[in-house]
Amino acid sequence: MPAIDLNSDLGESYGAWTMGNDAAMLDIVTSANVACGFHAGDPAGILATVQAAAARGVAIGAHVSYPDLIGFGRRNMAVPAAQLSADVVYQIGALQGLARSVGAQVSYVKPHGALYNTIALDPVQAGAVIQALLRIDPQLKLVCLANSPLLGWARQAGLSCVAEAFADRAYTAHGTLVPRTHPGAVLHDADLIAQRMLRLVRDGVIEAEDGQLIKLQAESICVHGDNPQAVDIARTVKHRLLEAGTELRAFS
Amino acid sequence: MPAIDLNSDLGESYGAWTMGNDAAMLDIVTSANVACGFHAGDPAGILATVQAAAARGVAIGAHVSYPDLIGFGRRNMAVPAAQLSADVVYQIGALQGLARSVGAQVSYVKPHGALYNTIALDPVQAGAVIQALLRIDPQLKLVCLANSPLLGWARQAGLSCVAEAFADRAYTAHGTLVPRTHPGAVLHDADLIAQRMLRLVRDGVIEAEDGQLIKLQAESICVHGDNPQAVDIARTVKHRLLEAGTELRAFS
Amino acid sequence: MPAIDLNSDLGESYGAWTMGNDAAMLDIVTSANVACGFHAGDPAGILATVQAAAARGVAIGAHVSYPDLIGFGRRNMAVPAAQLSADVVYQIGALQGLARSVGAQVSYVKPHGALYNTIALDPVQAGAVIQALLRIDPQLKLVCLANSPLLGWARQAGLSCVAEAFADRAYTAHGTLVPRTHPGAVLHDADLIAQRMLRLVRDGVIEAEDGQLIKLQAESICVHGDNPQAVDIARTVKHRLLEAGTELRAFS
Amino acid sequence: MPAIDLNSDLGESYGAWTMGNDAAMLDIVTSANVACGFHAGDPAGILATVQAAAARGVAIGAHVSYPDLIGFGRRNMAVPAAQLSADVVYQIGALQGLARSVGAQVSYVKPHGALYNTIALDPVQAGAVIQALLRIDPQLKLVCLANSPLLGWARQAGLSCVAEAFADRAYTAHGTLVPRTHPGAVLHDADLIAQRMLRLVRDGVIEAEDGQLIKLQAESICVHGDNPQAVDIARTVKHRLLEAGTELRAFS
Repeated sequence: MPAIDLNSDLGESYGAWTMGNDAAMLDIVTSANVACGFHAGDPAGILATVQAAAARGVAIGAHVSYPDLIGFGRRNMAVPAAQLSADVVYQIGALQGLARSVGAQVSYVKPHGALYNTIALDPVQAGAVIQALLRIDPQLKLVCLANSPLLGWARQAGLSCVAEAFADRAYTAHGTLVPRTHPGAVLHDADLIAQRMLRLVRDGVIEAEDGQLIKLQAESICVHGDNPQAVDIARTVKHRLLEAGTELRAFS
Repeated sequence: MPAIDLNSDLGESYGAWTMGNDAAMLDIVTSANVACGFHAGDPAGILATVQAAAARGVAIGAHVSYPDLIGFGRRNMAVPAAQLSADVVYQIGALQGLARSVGAQVSYVKPHGALYNTIALDPVQAGAVIQALLRIDPQLKLVCLANSPLLGWARQAGLSCVAEAFADRAYTAHGTLVPRTHPGAVLHDADLIAQRMLRLVRDGVIEAEDGQLIKLQAESICVHGDNPQAVDIARTVKHRLLEAGTELRAFS
Repeated sequence: MPAIDLNSDLGESYGAWTMGNDAAMLDIVTSANVACGFHAGDPAGILATVQAAAARGVAIGAHVSYPDLIGFGRRNMAVPAAQLSADVVYQIGALQGLARSVGAQVSYVKPHGALYNTIALDPVQAGAVIQALLRIDPQLKLVCLANSPLLGWARQAGLSCVAEAFADRAYTAHGTLVPRTHPGAVLHDADLIAQRMLRLVRDGVIEAEDGQLIKLQAESICVHGDNPQAVDIARTVKHRLLEAGTELRAFS
Repeated sequence: MPAIDLNSDLGESYGAWTMGNDAAMLDIVTSANVACGFHAGDPAGILATVQAAAARGVAIGAHVSYPDLIGFGRRNMAVPAAQLSADVVYQIGALQGLARSVGAQVSYVKPHGALYNTIALDPVQAGAVIQALLRIDPQLKLVCLANSPLLGWARQAGLSCVAEAFADRAYTAHGTLVPRTHPGAVLHDADLIAQRMLRLVRDGVIEAEDGQLIKLQAESICVHGDNPQAVDIARTVKHRLLEAGTELRAFS
């Protein structure tokens, strides 16, 4: 059985507003995508998240975003490449600073929301993000949607990439995600999801929405923790993988 | 003649808005206090400032602030210590990241505006800023108002401090700044200002508003560049000091 | 039995972040203090709150704040009077616009958080808020802390004021709130709270922390809804008042 | 000679940052597009702009934008229709409040920057803006790019529209603006520009970049004031039109 990483979005509270159950998720995942202040995360909250992750040995990644608090980074923005690249460096640097202040470190970068989806396919914005990593620290790994063009662009530029699958999402026969607006795009059955993930890890395949088995090479699985059901799904996925003898291990 | 540093606030443009004449000031000063995004400075603009400073061999400092863009960091804010400390680490980290991305580095920290004035006297907020530096990098120097209690607090905590004088400000007989709201608080005569600064550097004294000569130990002089008159004053100060054989040299 | 108003802070979600249980509280209160975007509330969320309040016949007030999203308007800010006055007009206008767009209207103003506490005592910031109301609409009522100097200042300026008591707060023998930082400042026993509010409405008195009965003239009672316990307390207060024959009626 | 309106973007300073020469432009134009805080404009600055416009009898319009201060509203954003509509109502309401507080009123709406360009062609975002006006005040006029589909959509929905031409922009043979990224898109010769605008007003035609004369129906001409050259161009256009006997008059 190969090893796999479980990652989740954490540190997404903001000032007086709470989001997600970070404490529960830190007991489940091996990598924490920590908000950097552009879509979520105030400095004191980010710091607490980084400390908690480090205390549990969970790897820390910079969850960088478009500057859009009110839209939670989920709205596409036409940010010119030079601005986007500086925005990404700024966010990584801020998280590195907070991590360093508690003896921890940032080992990877995962773009968030609309930025994640855009750079999977758009070479200009992808290039801006890739340049940001190369310039601030080329050892940082970049988490990319499995099967996306981004993987090739980033590797060609010299970055280490981590291909990522989504536990609770349906896939098309082309190996891409079924858009959220389509019926059936998001899965809710914890056992089914856990079964799919086990198969993914063991056999490198996933069943597409039309029933075909497709190849999906992934080194990390994204699980969510923004509601109690999501936390249950994440826990179920973890238990099934451990039961089957999979090693859970941060990729970074 | 002792050496002295000239510092100025730079990188204070924001998106489409321009402030100050960074290019002119970088030819005058030895240290650049670079905005970090909380009172001014967007990531791309900060990056350009850092690059320009590094290209001229000007030292780079983090000009950290309360989170108050609309008030330009000039309004007192009752930020609790833990939040303030995280805010300062976040800003330093972000600037360090941008600096590192172009092969430069941040060597000091100068709090901005209302935060600068508050921590000169308030032990709680001062402690929060001191803790921030100790945690992210205890080698960072802290620029402090000359004659302020902050100098003692920061040194006692183990930080290297730089005492700072203001070229265009009047001083009280106690060695503190005449508040901006008082008549005569801000000086405008370039020759007079330059003469005062020369005396400060050479003799360690400055004439207070009541005519007394007071001792003022300063390792750096702050000059402004937010309007053409200010740039002229800064240039005049520099020329007078050089003429008199003073060495201009970054403290860091 | 005199009539009384119950008010609560609503519309305090922000983008993807939820706060409080607006639906439950709208079934309890007679007046809704609706966030205006400076401490909480995005336009679409504010609009939904205004619609829901109007649909239930709940009066709508502008819950104006310092511009401090990350601090939720709870941190004191030294906003100069002219800026503060314009900030308040801006927020009231924005809420009036959203209300008008759904056929509703804003009938009062309640400052939020640190601004509320500051203007209860500070004549400069109080004057700025009073001027704002006089200029945008002198018919708007101003909710003021009972027993505070603000009541006098606002009435002298010609505004209609509403004195407010807090259901879950302890009072000093001087009739002011026990500061939140003191032990016992916040009450948690729903029955005790309801009993205190009934006495307040019926007899115009409240028991201070030292056991004395003090006079407290209030036309509105603030109840909270930011957690399930708070909603229970609010419901208990309402039931006890109704049981005793009190009429619950918006003051505006 | 028909009458024409001259409009310009004003109130675009923000806190400590100044933009444009509002005083000069208010002596030139008949309509002021006033920033509402989403791309520029702090409440106190907006208020000062509204007062100055009203004092000169210049009509006041709401210059509404995407929420993007750092990008000055110039970056496309995929804001869902319901959010966009609420954003527009919020901004109009805020400006109406500030105007009402000084006895002035808002008579039209002109979307800004990327929003302006997007709704000229995109029926979903256009519909969101149209709905916003219909709901807050259907008497508000909407300024639309001449020859754009938006004109038809807005009129069909029952709004009064104002077709707008740009003094300093080149036009394609289809009557649309040459994109800013193309060479020659922006004109700089004040006399040529004034001559083109006179012809536009007198004959309803403009010379396209390929030399063809095309029909262009416009009731308002946009002039800029963000630098001294732009102010000169605006002044030249005004003088030429007045010389030729055109009446300058706000459309609203």
